[in-house]
Amino acid sequence: MAENSVDFQGVLAEIQDEIDPFFGQGKNAGYIPALSDVPGDKFGMAVHTVEGEEFLIGDAQDDFSIQSISKLFTLMQVLGFDDIDIWSRVGREPSGTAFNSLVQLEYEKGIPRNPFINAGAIVVTDILASRSADASRRIGDYYRMLSGNLSNRVDEEVALSEQDHGYRNAALANLMRSFDNIQTPIPDLLDIYFRQCALTTSCADLAKAALPLACGGYSPIAQKQVLSTRDTKRINALLLTCGLYDAVGSFAYKVGLPAKSGVGGGIVAVLPNKFSVAVWSPELDSYGNSLVGSKALELFTTKTDLSIF
Amino acid sequence: MAENSVDFQGVLAEIQDEIDPFFGQGKNAGYIPALSDVPGDKFGMAVHTVEGEEFLIGDAQDDFSIQSISKLFTLMQVLGFDDIDIWSRVGREPSGTAFNSLVQLEYEKGIPRNPFINAGAIVVTDILASRSADASRRIGDYYRMLSGNLSNRVDEEVALSEQDHGYRNAALANLMRSFDNIQTPIPDLLDIYFRQCALTTSCADLAKAALPLACGGYSPIAQKQVLSTRDTKRINALLLTCGLYDAVGSFAYKVGLPAKSGVGGGIVAVLPNKFSVAVWSPELDSYGNSLVGSKALELFTTKTDLSIF
Amino acid sequence: MAENSVDFQGVLAEIQDEIDPFFGQGKNAGYIPALSDVPGDKFGMAVHTVEGEEFLIGDAQDDFSIQSISKLFTLMQVLGFDDIDIWSRVGREPSGTAFNSLVQLEYEKGIPRNPFINAGAIVVTDILASRSADASRRIGDYYRMLSGNLSNRVDEEVALSEQDHGYRNAALANLMRSFDNIQTPIPDLLDIYFRQCALTTSCADLAKAALPLACGGYSPIAQKQVLSTRDTKRINALLLTCGLYDAVGSFAYKVGLPAKSGVGGGIVAVLPNKFSVAVWSPELDSYGNSLVGSKALELFTTKTDLSIF
Amino acid sequence: MAENSVDFQGVLAEIQDEIDPFFGQGKNAGYIPALSDVPGDKFGMAVHTVEGEEFLIGDAQDDFSIQSISKLFTLMQVLGFDDIDIWSRVGREPSGTAFNSLVQLEYEKGIPRNPFINAGAIVVTDILASRSADASRRIGDYYRMLSGNLSNRVDEEVALSEQDHGYRNAALANLMRSFDNIQTPIPDLLDIYFRQCALTTSCADLAKAALPLACGGYSPIAQKQVLSTRDTKRINALLLTCGLYDAVGSFAYKVGLPAKSGVGGGIVAVLPNKFSVAVWSPELDSYGNSLVGSKALELFTTKTDLSIF
Repeated sequence: MAENSVDFQGVLAEIQDEIDPFFGQGKNAGYIPALSDVPGDKFGMAVHTVEGEEFLIGDAQDDFSIQSISKLFTLMQVLGFDDIDIWSRVGREPSGTAFNSLVQLEYEKGIPRNPFINAGAIVVTDILASRSADASRRIGDYYRMLSGNLSNRVDEEVALSEQDHGYRNAALANLMRSFDNIQTPIPDLLDIYFRQCALTTSCADLAKAALPLACGGYSPIAQKQVLSTRDTKRINALLLTCGLYDAVGSFAYKVGLPAKSGVGGGIVAVLPNKFSVAVWSPELDSYGNSLVGSKALELFTTKTDLSIF
Repeated sequence: MAENSVDFQGVLAEIQDEIDPFFGQGKNAGYIPALSDVPGDKFGMAVHTVEGEEFLIGDAQDDFSIQSISKLFTLMQVLGFDDIDIWSRVGREPSGTAFNSLVQLEYEKGIPRNPFINAGAIVVTDILASRSADASRRIGDYYRMLSGNLSNRVDEEVALSEQDHGYRNAALANLMRSFDNIQTPIPDLLDIYFRQCALTTSCADLAKAALPLACGGYSPIAQKQVLSTRDTKRINALLLTCGLYDAVGSFAYKVGLPAKSGVGGGIVAVLPNKFSVAVWSPELDSYGNSLVGSKALELFTTKTDLSIF
Repeated sequence: MAENSVDFQGVLAEIQDEIDPFFGQGKNAGYIPALSDVPGDKFGMAVHTVEGEEFLIGDAQDDFSIQSISKLFTLMQVLGFDDIDIWSRVGREPSGTAFNSLVQLEYEKGIPRNPFINAGAIVVTDILASRSADASRRIGDYYRMLSGNLSNRVDEEVALSEQDHGYRNAALANLMRSFDNIQTPIPDLLDIYFRQCALTTSCADLAKAALPLACGGYSPIAQKQVLSTRDTKRINALLLTCGLYDAVGSFAYKVGLPAKSGVGGGIVAVLPNKFSVAVWSPELDSYGNSLVGSKALELFTTKTDLSIF
Repeated sequence: MAENSVDFQGVLAEIQDEIDPFFGQGKNAGYIPALSDVPGDKFGMAVHTVEGEEFLIGDAQDDFSIQSISKLFTLMQVLGFDDIDIWSRVGREPSGTAFNSLVQLEYEKGIPRNPFINAGAIVVTDILASRSADASRRIGDYYRMLSGNLSNRVDEEVALSEQDHGYRNAALANLMRSFDNIQTPIPDLLDIYFRQCALTTSCADLAKAALPLACGGYSPIAQKQVLSTRDTKRINALLLTCGLYDAVGSFAYKVGLPAKSGVGGGIVAVLPNKFSVAVWSPELDSYGNSLVGSKALELFTTKTDLSIF
């Protein structure tokens, strides 16, 4: 099927029908009430083409918690500065198993493997925090600029809950600090980090915010170039090799698109020069990725025959 | 630059000029004489388009040792059988650091992370060996079918040298056998495995042999479908996420093509629906990938603006 | 209680009464029939004092498979040679968890942590095999000299069964060979190693064989000095810190004697200048040590108030 | 040499002569000025017999920083309470390599391997902090009771410096907190912990404070039973198997006494029923143990022929 002739709305409708059997197989993130209490049968999906068309289905306009997908946008924000060498402080390689995250960080002298594992994302946030006394607001501003939706805001209840369960992230930050790879005072840094994870967004917003990755760095929403073409390609490469934790290989194998997931149940993906796509359904598989969302994206690339491979 | 208008021959000539400063920075594989003795300034490159055009430069028709690139072709060969469930015996995820290979194999009960690390490739060869008393010849036949070159043969001297240095692979095979994930008697299995790594090929042959990955599974050389479209895409996804050991992220980031390298200095890569490209230069970087070859491929995708991202 | 006044026979009788509730809580080693088929309620214990008294109870004269306890005697045998520097090839530190054994061996460049983990014991056997074409017989001769019992022989059925389940040991040997820390051809080496583990012995013999460790290196049975006083103390230190795998700390904590165990259900321990003690009962705890045997030794040092601490 | 006839003062004098060549081979702990600035040629040693004799040499009455030796005394203090089950929260096994400390803590669900690695000592301090609002003072009181020296006090400069370099300990505490094995707010807990490590003491005091471990739990200084006989033996077993980090095996092998070291250059050891011995010299070997101190203790047990083995 050539992309020109794809009936995206029809494909979304088919997917909504076909994913029905997959509800109830996963489980909401359970560590904070604000995530565990979301109805498990929520499902939304949004496609935004580089030509400007938008296709929505289901709960595509409902808000949910962005969680780890925020790591993609803070990385974009940092790469948008010309004068920062982020790659001396964070690597670009897959991390292997979650099991090894702490030992790798130790073995590799406090340099996280990539910006999408927690340790790496904390370094990225540390870079933003070092540049601005008001990093938390600026992170929100950047996302709102990309989504074009001023109502994307921090859910304070989620942010507080994160803090109550953030000991593991505090362990990572302290370990990196012992290797001089963190500069911001750790309680301040974690506060900013937990707040970025507590942003709320919808599939419709998320697809818009990710559009620059399909448009060579240009944001049709903000109507400006937010990344160089070169950095855009590189972020897409990083997403493909590191964007889905321990399921990165399976996801590339089944879906074949650069993507980033969050434990709020969202996943955003792009096909360069074609479209961005966001999906949301809160029940997670054993890797912490939306189970129904992953299946929906697999159906999407199978039905449209559109993937990078 | 649109691909239709790419002057591939001109690009190859530019690359040959520009890679000159990179010779002497890497080092030939040193563990067996047959590899360490190859002149370090050798350089060849071959592009084969899906339309059937071929572009060669430098030593593109010289033979070299295929080494780990053979893992790609044994995987294709196994996936060409309809009745085999390889994925219960080998994973599809990046392995993280080389450092962890044995502990991961132990922790994950003898199931290698993917078919491109040694342990995984040995399992793939075990599958072929279990199906045929004459696996070694069949592996060669399959490659010769894809390359169209009957003179691609096992270098017996290399095969013997490998055996003299194969204790680490024997350790992997025995560990997997202790978890019942190897069936062939280990000395026989390693003999077949070392022979597949000792195949000789040229860049020109290699580009032809990899063409099915750019043609939806169809081999223009053998004039037949050797893989399903689905498996073809999946192999490309695996190459991108797992094909270059510990440099998979950097390679995706810099080059942006599914690829497989070998310590003989060869690298083969594909752009689906467009072309395959092979490069050879024996000096290796610290990850065991051809240093000049990696640089040449980075120049290639930068100059042509052709990558999957 | 002063040792002079200890009624060892009475203590053994008390122990035999009190260990009754512990039968059935452990499980015989299951990987080879010759071990799994031994009746679980077997129990024997032997004490041999430095003054030459012997106290036996239960099945103290029944033969069982020496298994890993043989590692103690091959170490003694190697240290008996003056011209060997074993400590450049094997360490003297506890190994931490079994889980890490392979990764430690890799991280530490093929040097096993100590001579009582399998990898270390294989190096010790390699040293013996490098010195003699007839290492297997000499290992048996050495043990028979210490025990004074010519009927301690290799159980060929056990030796063959070991070989059928020895893939993990083959993995260790090959990994060490890749670091040049093994010299004997691996199949020959493993054959010798499996044969040493298949020696049969009784508690009575075992207590006699270990007596030199309580007598400053002198064997009252062989009537000669078999180790220097210095090496004797050092072996005792090694036993205490490394002799019981992952339970070394708990065993020192509860029993407080240098000791070595085997999956055949035997444990031998010494109190320097006082006595040796051997116990046998085939059911193992989760660490692979005799459950009833460990309990019996704990009762023994508690009742006699005799331990090194 | 029988212990009755040992000329301890003469032995100490010989040691002081013989250790001369070993100065300058190690290096003071460098991470805080208060430790790095101590003159490297300091050397003191104190022996205290169970009969009440005291032998001193060199700088035996100079104060130095107790550092990790404090872990021994907080463990004694906790075991002195009848109603605490410490062993559900901390293990009793050697930790293997330092390299693995974090991964073991993660793999073993936040339960440190033993009370003498930092993580384990932090749990012990957490137990004390949970029982008393004034834990820091009580820890000091307990030590002063054992040493009989009221001038053993916290060096506030050292305590503050520790805090500035305590990120790794904060990482450990946070990781354990994420597994619910820490109860005290982490900044408070680390403050108490760093203060206990900043106690100053002399060899003479230290030998007195450790005497209960040689006297079945009785403190001749405080003139009371501070530990049960059973717990005393068990602490000695723990010291022998876990007291010197990665050098526990070598130390047991060379010295043969239960001992605890600190990066301030102190080491304290005991021979049950005979004596306690403390040594101090600030230059450390690669394991973080006093280089001259370790050598002095090796000479001490060799010359007196007194060790537990």
